[in-house]
Parts: sequence; C-alpha cells; structure tokens
Amino acid sequence: MKKIINQPEQVLVDMLAGYKLVHDDVTYLEDTHVITRAQFTSNKVGIISGGGSGHEPAHAGFVGLGMLDAAVCGHVFTSPTPDQVFSAIKAADQGSGVFLVIKNYSGDCMNFEMAKDLAELEGIAVDYVIVNDDVAVFDSSYTEGRRGVAGTILVHKIIGAAAEKGASLEDIKTLAESVVAHLATVGVAIKPAIVPEVGKPGFDLDEDEMEFGIGIHGEPGYSREKIKTSREIAEELIHKIEMETKWTTDQTLAVLINGMGATPLMEQYIFAHDCLNILQEKGYKVQFKKVGNYMTAIDMAGVSLTLLQLEDPKWLEYLTESTLAPAW
Amino acid sequence: MKKIINQPEQVLVDMLAGYKLVHDDVTYLEDTHVITRAQFTSNKVGIISGGGSGHEPAHAGFVGLGMLDAAVCGHVFTSPTPDQVFSAIKAADQGSGVFLVIKNYSGDCMNFEMAKDLAELEGIAVDYVIVNDDVAVFDSSYTEGRRGVAGTILVHKIIGAAAEKGASLEDIKTLAESVVAHLATVGVAIKPAIVPEVGKPGFDLDEDEMEFGIGIHGEPGYSREKIKTSREIAEELIHKIEMETKWTTDQTLAVLINGMGATPLMEQYIFAHDCLNILQEKGYKVQFKKVGNYMTAIDMAGVSLTLLQLEDPKWLEYLTESTLAPAW
Repeated sequence: MKKIINQPEQVLVDMLAGYKLVHDDVTYLEDTHVITRAQFTSNKVGIISGGGSGHEPAHAGFVGLGMLDAAVCGHVFTSPTPDQVFSAIKAADQGSGVFLVIKNYSGDCMNFEMAKDLAELEGIAVDYVIVNDDVAVFDSSYTEGRRGVAGTILVHKIIGAAAEKGASLEDIKTLAESVVAHLATVGVAIKPAIVPEVGKPGFDLDEDEMEFGIGIHGEPGYSREKIKTSREIAEELIHKIEMETKWTTDQTLAVLINGMGATPLMEQYIFAHDCLNILQEKGYKVQFKKVGNYMTAIDMAGVSLTLLQLEDPKWLEYLTESTLAPAW
Repeated sequence: MKKIINQPEQVLVDMLAGYKLVHDDVTYLEDTHVITRAQFTSNKVGIISGGGSGHEPAHAGFVGLGMLDAAVCGHVFTSPTPDQVFSAIKAADQGSGVFLVIKNYSGDCMNFEMAKDLAELEGIAVDYVIVNDDVAVFDSSYTEGRRGVAGTILVHKIIGAAAEKGASLEDIKTLAESVVAHLATVGVAIKPAIVPEVGKPGFDLDEDEMEFGIGIHGEPGYSREKIKTSREIAEELIHKIEMETKWTTDQTLAVLINGMGATPLMEQYIFAHDCLNILQEKGYKVQFKKVGNYMTAIDMAGVSLTLLQLEDPKWLEYLTESTLAPAW
C-alpha cells in the first residue's frame, strides 16, 4: 500500500484536523468527529449528513451556507456512532429542528435513528430521509434494499437551499422524500480501493476487467466484464437506470457524473460527453450538469452516473442557488 | 492500461466536447482546441493560459469571470501550436490587449511567443509571463531553467482578479512577474501517470518507492526514496523550498496543496495538516490555504506544495475575490 498518510489508524483525525486548518469557516468537534459551520443561520432547520469516511469530499466538504450545517464522520467505511450523530444534532439545532440525510446502509440507519431518539428525549425535533439511489443491485453487503451513493449530494443541495429559504422540517421531509423517489445512480469500478487500515484492495479486478454496479465501499455490482469504451459504459449505465426506473424519455433531468477518487477529470469529461450525447439522442432534456469527485471511494478508479428527474422546477432553482460549501 | 476513454488519440477532442456540453458559459473553438468565456468583459485585458493537456482542470476549468478568458489546449503533454494560441488571442482581445501565462517548457515558450508575434502583426498588444515555480530541479527534460507547475494557478487567480478590476496590460505584466518571483513549488509522486496514446507508465516506481521533485509530465525529480510518512514528506518539501528560495520564516504565505490526479482528498487533507502545522511551528504566517486537484498529471498519484510570499496585501484580496471559474 502506498499512500500519503501517517499512521493508518490516524487517517480520520489527521484528515479532519487538516480540514479544519484549511477551512476557517467551520468548527471541528474533535471528540465526536463532527464538522459544523462556524456560524449557523438562525431559526433555520439544521441539515446534517454523514456516514463512514473515505468518500471525501462527502460529507464535510458540503458543510456551508446553502448546504449542510454539520457532517458526522465515522471511521473509514464505518458508520458513526449514535453519540457522534447526537452531538451533530445538538450543534446544528437552532430551534427549528434538525433533518438527517442518511445513506441506506444498515449501520447508518440504525445509528442515525438512535441519535434521533436521543435528541427527541431532549426536546429537539428531528426527522430524516434515507437515500437509496443506487439502482445497481437490491440488498447488498451492508444494505437492505438499495444503497445510498452519489445522488445524496443532490439531496444535500436541494434541501440545503430550501432550508436556507426557510422551509419547515415537515416541508423538508416531503421535499427530500420526493427527490429521493426521482433519483437513480449506477457506478462502475476499474480499480479497487485500499482502506488504509486494511492495506490491500477490497476486491480484485484483472488488468483488463471492470465491474458494473459496484458500491462505494467495493460492494459487488451486477456484472464483471472486460474493460469497455467510455461510450459503451455510458450506454450500459443509462440502460440500467432505464430498466430499473421505467422512466420515459420525455423527462427533464439533472445529471451528476461522479469520479470515484482516482479517476482523472480527463476521463470524467470524456464519460460526461458520452452520457450527455446519449441522453440527448434518446430525447431527454438535461437542465443541470455537474462533473467531478463528489462521493468517492478512497482511491477507487471509476465513475458513477446519477440522474434526477426534475419533477418540480423549484428543484432546478435549488440546484443552481449559490452555496459556500467548498466542495460543491 | 485501464482508462474510461474511447480511442486514445481522441481523448483531447472528446474531453473538450464534454467540457463544452457540461459548462454552458463557455465557447469551444473546435478547430483550435480553445475554450473561451461565452461572454467577455468589455475593455478588459484578456488573460490566456494553456499548454499540453493532461493537467485538468488546468487550464480550461479556470476560464470564467475573475480568472482566464481563454485556455489553449494542446494534445496530452504536448505544447499547443502558435496557430492555436493565436486563435485564443484573437478571441480574447477586447481592445485592451492580451496577456499570456506560459509555463516554462521550451515548446510552450516558443509557440506562445510566436503567437504573440503573429498577433502583434495584426495590431493586438500582447505581453506574457513565464511561470517557473518548480524549485525541485534546474533544467529538465523539456525545460531550460525551472519548470512551471501548480503555482501557475495562483498566477491565474491574482492577475485574473486584477484584470477584472481594470488593470492595464503593463500593470498585469508587472504584477505577474512579481508574483512569479515570490512563488515556489515542489511535488512528489508515488505512482506514475499513463499517457493514453502511450499506454504504459512514463516511469517506473517500485511498490515501496516515491520520488521527490517529480515534474507534472513525469520529468525526473531530485531524489528517489522509500515511501515516507505524510509528515516526513511535508518536512522535506518545505525544507527544499527553504533551501532553494532562501526565504526567512517571517513571511506571510499563501499555501496551495495540489493533488496530482489520482490522489484522494483524504491524503491531500492529511498532507495539508502536516504542511500547515510545520509552517506554523516554523513561524510562518499563513493567510490563504487551498487544497484539491488543480494542476494534475493525468492519473499520477502524488501531491505538490506551493508557497507564495504575500509580498503585497492586494494579492490576498485578489486570491479571495469571487470567480465563476468552475475549478477554482
């Protein structure tokens, strides 16, 4: 394993301390590995996300005006504990309640929901959404149902903007559930990730192989094949999303092309070119496009494609609203 | 070679066509591989950068209000031709002249300067700066003197902001030369890059090796060693910059930590933590910090550290001024 780190068991604390040193507009709750805004918007619903680390810039990079109020950071590929989440809730509560964005992994669901119970005992109103946008497989290593992956970032952005404009906890819950219901992602890996404390790849891929439908912790996908061209990969991912969602091609879409951590922007833009051309050829109308590393899997090489049906014109407004979150 | 591409010889055009599809606020001059703003600021000095591709987001990602007016994109690791640069100059000229930011590679210097001559024949005022921030080695594979690397991004930002505020071509020349004189970068690689058309790594590194002072095209550095910790790497790079620049520790600095393409943000923030701690321990005052992939070497894994002495308080203002360039 070659990585630019110190002790493998220290990567979380070194990284978060680094994050705090670089970004002056956040507070770092060291004991619970939580990054919050340094200044909160008063009376706003607090928006929190989090989960295991290794998905940087998710989620700390999305803390900032217009997106999250706090990010709870578990150890690498490990759910944060209820106490960690609870500390974020207490920090983010400005009297209007707190909303949790949970990716659908069993540990995250359990621990975030326990934190909700703890907070409610202290009189803080809490609600949540479970994001399950990965249409690749049903049930997986750490998940019942579908996994939560890169589409989560679009949920952050949309409800973050809505919260900033004064939406209530109830409104945000309705909005978040509707967004999640119109969201679909599939990813591919061409090289596996190495968890620092493990020191070797989480799975093996031959020098000419790729895997369709891989999870962001290296969970199995739905098909392992010889490496394909960018165009063929784009065709397959769009086909997979169409098969699983049954969407018709008269949809208006937001498109997120996400790099998995070690994929250069050159490849991401080539892949974006193919995806956007195919979507246009099929008749979809794309109104929002974004390319970059948003929900990574440490140093995995690969990409994911997220499509969001823009069911409500407001969602496009929320997506294009300005934000101070550094990673958006 | 595993990459998400189509034909290796098509990567430049596929990538730029993708860039144009994703970013509605640019114009793509297909014949000359130039990305410009779709709308220019009238009467402003045009700011142009460019060079070989493979350094994404440099330079197209820095085109936008507050930074560049145009980016000239050569083939991967290959200088653009004088005609390409000339077409960018013509597009960016709004009557107040055009300023070229050239990284110090022999081909770039020759071709950008020839384009300047062509433009002057047509009555366009052109001036330029040569960025040579890489203090690792003197003379290199494609360079006489010192190479131009990630510090170039800080030059874009500072003179881009100054140009937007109405600085003249002469002012910008003076400003750019002063910034370059106070700029120093050193990089390390832990894994080599693969040029798509070549299909194999540009150099070899053993499974436990790293190289100090590597160039952004894989040019040799100054020392190949066993892999070190992030803290040790930070110490060595800061020491190297101090040795080469003779700066005293009472300086006020801007710090750019740059990922080489395949280095996850987790490692970049850990490395930032070490760099910023060491600089503080030594007594430097750091007033600006930035972490991410800005000047990459395709899929090389590694980082670079850029320090800029903030000689004039205006430079900090220019660095923190808002910009619409998507990659800043």
